[in-house]
Amino acid sequence: MRLPRQVSKQLAFVPLQDASGTIQLKLSGDDSVLEAMRSTPLESVISVRGTVQARADAVKNAKMRTGDVEVHVTDWQLLNAAEAALPFYPTQCHDTNLPKESLRARYRYLDLRRVALAENIRRRSRVAHAARCFLHSRYFTEIETPVLLRSTPEGAREFLSPTRVPQGTPPSFYALQQSPQQPKQLLMASGVTDRYFQFAKCFRDEDGRKDRQPEFTQIDVEMSFVAGADAAPWRIGGAEVRDTVEGLVHAMWDAAEMQERLPHSFPVYTYTQVMSTYGSDKPDLRFGLSIAEAARDLEAEQALDLLVLPHTTLADGSTLKLSAREISALLQRKDGTRSEIEHFKAHRNDPDALASLLLQKSRHVASVQPTVAQLRELLAPYLDAANLFAPHEPDAKLPRTIRCDVFVARRNLPVHGSSTEMGDLRLRIAETLAARYRAVYSAVPHIMWVTEFPLFTRADQEKQELVQGRWSSSHHPFTAPAAQDVPRLLDALRSAPPDATAIASIHGQHYDLVLNGMEIAGGSVRIHDPALQEAIFRSVLDLSDEETHRFAHLLHALKCGAPPHAGIAIGFDRFMAILCGTSSIRDVIAFPKSSSGADPLFASPAPLEEGPANEMTGQLAAYGLKRAT
Amino acid sequence: MRLPRQVSKQLAFVPLQDASGTIQLKLSGDDSVLEAMRSTPLESVISVRGTVQARADAVKNAKMRTGDVEVHVTDWQLLNAAEAALPFYPTQCHDTNLPKESLRARYRYLDLRRVALAENIRRRSRVAHAARCFLHSRYFTEIETPVLLRSTPEGAREFLSPTRVPQGTPPSFYALQQSPQQPKQLLMASGVTDRYFQFAKCFRDEDGRKDRQPEFTQIDVEMSFVAGADAAPWRIGGAEVRDTVEGLVHAMWDAAEMQERLPHSFPVYTYTQVMSTYGSDKPDLRFGLSIAEAARDLEAEQALDLLVLPHTTLADGSTLKLSAREISALLQRKDGTRSEIEHFKAHRNDPDALASLLLQKSRHVASVQPTVAQLRELLAPYLDAANLFAPHEPDAKLPRTIRCDVFVARRNLPVHGSSTEMGDLRLRIAETLAARYRAVYSAVPHIMWVTEFPLFTRADQEKQELVQGRWSSSHHPFTAPAAQDVPRLLDALRSAPPDATAIASIHGQHYDLVLNGMEIAGGSVRIHDPALQEAIFRSVLDLSDEETHRFAHLLHALKCGAPPHAGIAIGFDRFMAILCGTSSIRDVIAFPKSSSGADPLFASPAPLEEGPANEMTGQLAAYGLKRAT
Repeated sequence: MRLPRQVSKQLAFVPLQDASGTIQLKLSGDDSVLEAMRSTPLESVISVRGTVQARADAVKNAKMRTGDVEVHVTDWQLLNAAEAALPFYPTQCHDTNLPKESLRARYRYLDLRRVALAENIRRRSRVAHAARCFLHSRYFTEIETPVLLRSTPEGAREFLSPTRVPQGTPPSFYALQQSPQQPKQLLMASGVTDRYFQFAKCFRDEDGRKDRQPEFTQIDVEMSFVAGADAAPWRIGGAEVRDTVEGLVHAMWDAAEMQERLPHSFPVYTYTQVMSTYGSDKPDLRFGLSIAEAARDLEAEQALDLLVLPHTTLADGSTLKLSAREISALLQRKDGTRSEIEHFKAHRNDPDALASLLLQKSRHVASVQPTVAQLRELLAPYLDAANLFAPHEPDAKLPRTIRCDVFVARRNLPVHGSSTEMGDLRLRIAETLAARYRAVYSAVPHIMWVTEFPLFTRADQEKQELVQGRWSSSHHPFTAPAAQDVPRLLDALRSAPPDATAIASIHGQHYDLVLNGMEIAGGSVRIHDPALQEAIFRSVLDLSDEETHRFAHLLHALKCGAPPHAGIAIGFDRFMAILCGTSSIRDVIAFPKSSSGADPLFASPAPLEEGPANEMTGQLAAYGLKRAT
Repeated sequence: MRLPRQVSKQLAFVPLQDASGTIQLKLSGDDSVLEAMRSTPLESVISVRGTVQARADAVKNAKMRTGDVEVHVTDWQLLNAAEAALPFYPTQCHDTNLPKESLRARYRYLDLRRVALAENIRRRSRVAHAARCFLHSRYFTEIETPVLLRSTPEGAREFLSPTRVPQGTPPSFYALQQSPQQPKQLLMASGVTDRYFQFAKCFRDEDGRKDRQPEFTQIDVEMSFVAGADAAPWRIGGAEVRDTVEGLVHAMWDAAEMQERLPHSFPVYTYTQVMSTYGSDKPDLRFGLSIAEAARDLEAEQALDLLVLPHTTLADGSTLKLSAREISALLQRKDGTRSEIEHFKAHRNDPDALASLLLQKSRHVASVQPTVAQLRELLAPYLDAANLFAPHEPDAKLPRTIRCDVFVARRNLPVHGSSTEMGDLRLRIAETLAARYRAVYSAVPHIMWVTEFPLFTRADQEKQELVQGRWSSSHHPFTAPAAQDVPRLLDALRSAPPDATAIASIHGQHYDLVLNGMEIAGGSVRIHDPALQEAIFRSVLDLSDEETHRFAHLLHALKCGAPPHAGIAIGFDRFMAILCGTSSIRDVIAFPKSSSGADPLFASPAPLEEGPANEMTGQLAAYGLKRAT
């Protein structure tokens, strides 16, 4: 119980707070009792005895959940006094006067007294329990898999943990699990259950990424005996996983008592659709601002995409407009080089002039040669539309009139990767506008499945170190190719070297769940045929014998009679951040680390203590290690 | 679906297995269908279409859960073929013909097809969910705490994980959490909830201990605003934790569908009681064989304890008896030195002779000088008792007649530590007898609380390296002293050096939960007074400024107004082993490690791969580390 105070002479009113809320205490009469209360420091812990009574109508507080009552105190006791001066006073912090983040991080136990933060943590517990109850009601089995695993050649950078070894032996390590991918596939192969889940702690040693945590929690799901290809728009397998996740997300959404509703079934888009229209594989559909494919109809090899920047008048009469300077800043590349994107002004009142200008500029950015008439037709809906900047789906909450005067063109239709330059620009435009006009993003949540990703890529910069110019898996090497693409893949592998164009065109049975522009889940149907799995390891990914051998246990498990299986992992921290209406996952983790991976509260990571007997050397030596310098 | 087969000519009966059980398929007619089934390897995965029909009465199988029905197959499909020869066939394994453990560990995904093992894993999931439902129904909040923490000076050996550092910087490490002790106390100080729990993955780098795992799961619980000292026999605080755990254990017990019942409330013993009577702080009360304190009544400083070895006739007329050779082996110390324990024979028919002999021998082992009459009185119940080897509580299932002819004497009443030599002997006797007579252990579970442990010890060999001759905490340094002992502790600290006898006599508000001789939970009321906590750090435990500073965040949290709090951690793996009727926690973990910490399935731990560009040096160098040799 916390104790901000507000004391008069013969009468004291004290708001008393605990994890369940705040209530007003009324102390009256005995002067020594009042004096003792007066001299008790704020944030001290007290125990109170008294009667709960209705407040007089005049002093009822409708803003307070317990504002109709107060406790008439007959006796109270100091359980633990707080110091007279604390680093900050959480009950006096509001959104507008928060102490700086580093101070709050260091004294996280004080920061957790803020009602907003504490409610996030409690909500996380309720949502997690609702998720578990849902999955158990669907006959899922929760199984813990090892955190201490072996290093795997695929994936992000791992954390290692050295083990004690005999002197002279090379140092030996566990790797902390990045995800339970292999263990859960082995569970499916084992048949111990045909419906597995786990709230899994995972670890990745990635720095330089905003709002990533070195340890995070995912809801890991795997199901066996999944059916094969489904009907459009979900043309891949794993429909059982989709249905489970839709139910699961609804259960968690309800547990968080969200005001806005999610659609009963989530819309399904293909990778090609979202990359073409939004330039991202996780598009934010809370606003429109779609990218027109000028060249799609023109059948040109190099496409000309158009992004129409809005000049919008909001319902209240204000104008949603970017200045020329802002546009210029948005088009600036981070590295200072010239963007491939060009922009120019035009007037809705003269579409022919606009089309001509566009055509003229487009020569710089694309080899297509559309006619003015073609361009004019293409532009018509944008010059006309009342919903240019409105969300993808109709949303009555954002009535606007729209006038556009800026267009942007870029070349190249996307084939691989997670976003295009045009898609990134689309997000920056929205962010820039949102900074000024809060209403840019729809309050209605926008959730969607994205499917039919390319199975292989050479584009992932992150994995470049591991891949060394070879093909890598867009998702992971266990993802099954789309059923209709398998014959083409096998054909491609028959030629030596394998047919690169064919390989690039193979789609995977992979699916991502995207909510408000964030990937909150990703998964796939897995390969259960050991011959196909080995062919992909060796012939596509070009793994050496030694690299393939590291997957020997998985290959053998598939050879022992493994059922078809599929699964998914939900990023629980990120989903919770959305459910708590915060942009930072640090607001939904009790003891988060900073973006550099440091923990200012527990002061980790830290050098080993130098004990009296040179303990540091001793401990490192036990691992067969020593300091490099 | 798994497929052991049993095929005749025009008719095939095939037992088909999945995670839910086994059912019999009936295939008839079409020869090519039968031939295809005949040539499908065992353990292949198939999909079947057909109708479930009642079997004829004559071929119903009462031993099989689905023995009344069979599936008349109209169509079937091979989903994934198994190899023709597997390392072993799990459906053909029974308790008596199990392949050796190392083979099963390597092919764990096959071993998990054994129904007994698979059922353990599924039961674990049900029990965990029941535990969570119970705790949520009691308004507990589940909160995840960091696995990547900082090294702490107390506790067992940690696993470390190095982080990337700039060149020339000393190497820097996270430590993997050994338990969420400090985080959960900080949560209580924060008031984010007053009832916390977590299924926490914990890590300890201890080898050489049978059936320990480097990673394990504990159900971690902490409650704030706990009341103070309770009435006998629970004379300490934290009764709320006791009540919660008793409810929790019942909920888990019921979820496991255990046949035997637990008592509604668990009996409470003090440390002194169980150490005196059973020579262990976690006594197994499924059998009697209690230790008599010959000297307690004699008020000697050095006690003479008596352990009466049974010579028992079972109800069926067989005799429960140890041979002279067995007794001799039991008394042998592991290191080959002479035990302090002496044994000698006597005859119940001549108690005076026995007492004399005992007295004569006791001179070697104790300084007490009881009279023959005194000893005779002491021995009387043993010579007489019909329940000498019966469980501690009445158990109708073990009717026996008893005759004793062996006694053992040892000196020294226990003050610290977890067992006495006499207590260890008691267990070895039971094990030796149980190896021959299964009925030695009662089938009724025996659960108990043990309380009022000594707060400080110099006896813990495990921590000797850290302690260096200083006092150490029997449990951990945050355990509160018993309320009635606090004035004595503060007195003891006023003298310099602190009064060692007084310190040794202080009891802690610590409680262990013991089931069938295994500690399944341990916890305590914590210190919430920062001054008392700091006095214990500095004056009793003799921590240096630097060592104390490592607890600075905890001390400061207590100074910010922390409520009184108490908690406990339940060893989930061990409890599950009991709930699954197995002696090894490896039987309740999906992917366990061997006793040396190795994982034969994932082949961890392992040296770093030596990549083409000397990756190993690169990766270690990034941590500021290199190979020692």
